[in-house]
Amino acid sequence: MREVAVIGVGMTKFGKWLDKSLKDLGREAVWVAIDHAGIDPRDIQYAAVGNSMAGILLGQESIRGQTILRDAGFGGIPIVNVENACASGSTAFFSAWMAVACGLCDVALALGVEKLFCGNTALSIKALSTATDMDFEGRMGISFPGIYAMRLKRHMQKYGTTRHQMALVAVKNHHNGSLNPYAQYRNEVTVEEVLNSRMIADPVTLLMTSPMGDGAAAAILCAKEVAGRYTTKPIYVAATVLNSAPITDPTDPKAPNITKVTAMKAYETAGIGPEDIEVAEVHDAMAPAEILNIEHLQFCPEGEGGPFVEAGNTAINGSKPVNTSGGLAARGHPVAATGLAQICEVVWQLRGEAGARQVDPVPQVGIIQNGGGSIGGETASMGVHILKR
Amino acid sequence: MREVAVIGVGMTKFGKWLDKSLKDLGREAVWVAIDHAGIDPRDIQYAAVGNSMAGILLGQESIRGQTILRDAGFGGIPIVNVENACASGSTAFFSAWMAVACGLCDVALALGVEKLFCGNTALSIKALSTATDMDFEGRMGISFPGIYAMRLKRHMQKYGTTRHQMALVAVKNHHNGSLNPYAQYRNEVTVEEVLNSRMIADPVTLLMTSPMGDGAAAAILCAKEVAGRYTTKPIYVAATVLNSAPITDPTDPKAPNITKVTAMKAYETAGIGPEDIEVAEVHDAMAPAEILNIEHLQFCPEGEGGPFVEAGNTAINGSKPVNTSGGLAARGHPVAATGLAQICEVVWQLRGEAGARQVDPVPQVGIIQNGGGSIGGETASMGVHILKR
Repeated sequence: MREVAVIGVGMTKFGKWLDKSLKDLGREAVWVAIDHAGIDPRDIQYAAVGNSMAGILLGQESIRGQTILRDAGFGGIPIVNVENACASGSTAFFSAWMAVACGLCDVALALGVEKLFCGNTALSIKALSTATDMDFEGRMGISFPGIYAMRLKRHMQKYGTTRHQMALVAVKNHHNGSLNPYAQYRNEVTVEEVLNSRMIADPVTLLMTSPMGDGAAAAILCAKEVAGRYTTKPIYVAATVLNSAPITDPTDPKAPNITKVTAMKAYETAGIGPEDIEVAEVHDAMAPAEILNIEHLQFCPEGEGGPFVEAGNTAINGSKPVNTSGGLAARGHPVAATGLAQICEVVWQLRGEAGARQVDPVPQVGIIQNGGGSIGGETASMGVHILKR
Repeated sequence: MREVAVIGVGMTKFGKWLDKSLKDLGREAVWVAIDHAGIDPRDIQYAAVGNSMAGILLGQESIRGQTILRDAGFGGIPIVNVENACASGSTAFFSAWMAVACGLCDVALALGVEKLFCGNTALSIKALSTATDMDFEGRMGISFPGIYAMRLKRHMQKYGTTRHQMALVAVKNHHNGSLNPYAQYRNEVTVEEVLNSRMIADPVTLLMTSPMGDGAAAAILCAKEVAGRYTTKPIYVAATVLNSAPITDPTDPKAPNITKVTAMKAYETAGIGPEDIEVAEVHDAMAPAEILNIEHLQFCPEGEGGPFVEAGNTAINGSKPVNTSGGLAARGHPVAATGLAQICEVVWQLRGEAGARQVDPVPQVGIIQNGGGSIGGETASMGVHILKR
């Protein structure tokens, strides 16, 4: 298996892009990434494209990647359309990594693109619910704020995690988003505003949720052995692990957690431990989920995520900066674009290109955690990636 | 890159399965393939699942593979949902091949599953049209019989290909289907019946088209170095090439044809020429397209496909047996299942397990050609695979 480097990344600003099509968004992210990598676009010999909702929302199924990439000027290469709900971006990254790792090509493109604003909010919400098993969770009417709320309620009961600690995550991530020109929300919020905003699914309030959004993000991967041809700042893929929900009894309190299992495999593959991680992007589709995820990533012992956040460890200048981009809650969460936007942020951080939100000193190692969908009480798909300079 | 073998295949009978769900169909194909491979199912450490239409037709987007495979008993492994319209099955095969070739795992599963009968035929037809670029072809109202009709008309004008020759393909493939217990249509048809059946898009008549259908097909792939652990009859992947439409001017008569370009790359990769092919499954979504495809695969010179068929070369006992399964026109064409059903047929032929339609002597080398979607006047996605004993 060949070693793989990320040599360029790019994304659109996430937001409500009523005047941009799926193609417009995808084309922009691809070409920004190509510029960042400084490559001849003809060197790209494989593309994986993640999109989750265009079939239901825009009536474009099947060959979504071909339509977007042809519009961007690409054809005559293998194009694989991949999907794994909110982890579709991670899945595209994983697929492009495989193509380079197995020697199929030297340079590959991973693109995630999503357009949730389709002129029909009810349809968008319905489409988002199709990221569950539609024979069970989906048709019962449960939606993701409800799923997260149940997980958070259990955490509160078991470990005493407080609403104040949960609000602090939203406050920190909105602060980070205010420093990120690509973020959908650039405004700061206070603990009081977060706690007093409309209750969505107790304990999740409106300002803890991630917004509906449009956007795209892309990464250019290449074989380590040729990375020097393109860049002086390659970022190496130390591990990229994709997983799906284990088959467990969801009522079993000792059932393995998919984030933890996947992260442990990534650490083992990379030969890097949680203590070595200097920047992290985690999947906070509801901001307080960050507390659960940092525990699963072993940044702190189980149950201590709340106090860990409260002590400021996860701030940009803390011991373990988390979601410097603003995370899903502030940078935004156009489903299939998210995983690659997380990759973008960690690559920028490791290259010292993160501007006002740069971790100082420039970190050596970063981790990305990106979950998608729900099945049988567990996240359906999980990607964990460790990148290093 | 490691060499890869197919150690087991399985499929459902294709047909109108009003009483079977997507999960029922997928589960059946997976377990039949596992039985055929004789493996412990826990050895499967990667799965690629192709499905094209469940988002629009059944309301299940995003995590289709997880829902199907969990129902079949699988979790805790990487599951990648892939899509490339009618080439989704090939794409799943290609993705599973990459996972084994790159050393991620020793044993991988490729599954293609489709349910076109959703209780609303108009919706099914609309969904099928989303395998085009919906900003162009799709919204203009063109559908696949029309696209194929234009290609065939051009072939008739340029080379004198006759309606009789085109009907002979349908007759041969229905004959082959009558010998295949997995085929949707088991009835023989005559040239007169084909030519006198209802005109769909001149020159394509009803009995030349592939039917609406439900079904699933699966393959188990493993590293060549461990194949001996599982089977005495490994079938090796000599080449698996995935491609997308080149960017060309569709009015340019000298524009490269995607089937030809992809096949030439597969021959080159395999170190095998068209003269070595002893059995072929080609994408006859409209039966006469077989004439075009065998030319692109270099079985005969360009323009001579009609006479080549007329001389009986493509019959089971001919010099170049094509679509021994009955092809898409008779075995059926549940979109994402087709590519893997083609793999099933060639694997059975190379193992001498094709029953009444077995090519004699048992062939050494077979080829699969599987195209999907349409974009800019060309097939959007193309998979060509060469398998050998």
